[in-house]
Amino acid sequence: MTLALDAAAQDLLFREARTANTFSDEPVSDEQVQAIYDLVKFGPTAFNQQPLRIVLVRSEEGRARLVQHMADGNKAKTSGAPLVAILAADNEFHEELPSQLPHFPQAKDMFFSERPVREASATLNGALQAAYFIIGVRAAGLAAGPMTGYDAAGINKEFFGDGEHSVLAVVNIGKPGEDAWFPRSPRLAYDQVVTTV
Amino acid sequence: MTLALDAAAQDLLFREARTANTFSDEPVSDEQVQAIYDLVKFGPTAFNQQPLRIVLVRSEEGRARLVQHMADGNKAKTSGAPLVAILAADNEFHEELPSQLPHFPQAKDMFFSERPVREASATLNGALQAAYFIIGVRAAGLAAGPMTGYDAAGINKEFFGDGEHSVLAVVNIGKPGEDAWFPRSPRLAYDQVVTTV
Repeated sequence: MTLALDAAAQDLLFREARTANTFSDEPVSDEQVQAIYDLVKFGPTAFNQQPLRIVLVRSEEGRARLVQHMADGNKAKTSGAPLVAILAADNEFHEELPSQLPHFPQAKDMFFSERPVREASATLNGALQAAYFIIGVRAAGLAAGPMTGYDAAGINKEFFGDGEHSVLAVVNIGKPGEDAWFPRSPRLAYDQVVTTV
Repeated sequence: MTLALDAAAQDLLFREARTANTFSDEPVSDEQVQAIYDLVKFGPTAFNQQPLRIVLVRSEEGRARLVQHMADGNKAKTSGAPLVAILAADNEFHEELPSQLPHFPQAKDMFFSERPVREASATLNGALQAAYFIIGVRAAGLAAGPMTGYDAAGINKEFFGDGEHSVLAVVNIGKPGEDAWFPRSPRLAYDQVVTTV
């Protein structure tokens, strides 16, 4: 009643969507990923910065290069997912600000001339974009299995190598398989999270 | 066609939703915020950690305490929004892990005993939760105006004061007012963001 979003969409994106640990063999197409991107690219960020970069791991060689850097507990599901996406922040995102923020191109030099400031901004806003992407995967009727258990330095070097990208998450994507998820864990109550001043 | 989410929901959450800079006088109720939280609390995070904390600024005194720390360009809209929410990460979130991850309570000590590790995790996962919250505001049929232009240290001290919380964003919330938004800025093309290996 209180929400404008219809109940089916609420279920699809949040209430019935779960982090999948197993997947069916059904492939995930480039067209699906493009449709996800074309929706979630509109999610808001500071100064319209868009640090998120996505590496789709499709080849057997690419999969092997990734799996070696995953934590042991994540290797099997990363090996078995129809598609795996590496989500990373481009710490040099400011180079694109003048074209992406045409009414305020000075923002690039006014706010982002220092690398530590850029990295903090890329991490925060890249994480916002990663969350929008996860929601987008669910909007496509697919299950996402986001993971942060890996050797981050190893993935950064293996897949980017330029010292300018920082992995944020690795996401398994596909239709859920057998026994795809654990029972849902609890969530904090409203009063534990929200206060009023 | 490619997405399972219906077109109206796509519009509500991403395509027609915009960052609002002005708001109508229509109030935002606690019931609406509760409905938003009860939906987006299910968004996935690592180890089911829930570092996000939300301070609803409702009193005149609270508003004044917040506005003084906002960047000049954000003061007017922060003053005028029906409701303002401070989103922060609780860097001591690990204290709640045993209750929130009952099948693996050891995670608290195995992975989060060191403060710098906790802070990085709270920032990343708190940002994911902040993005879910922004999507939730839109799901409620409201406009969100997220901002990161403020004195973060000032807000942390003013509203938390325990040295354990880090502000992630301040979000104006309400129905859009007159001339609520700028023309939409561009987004990076798929091929600028997505590569395949």
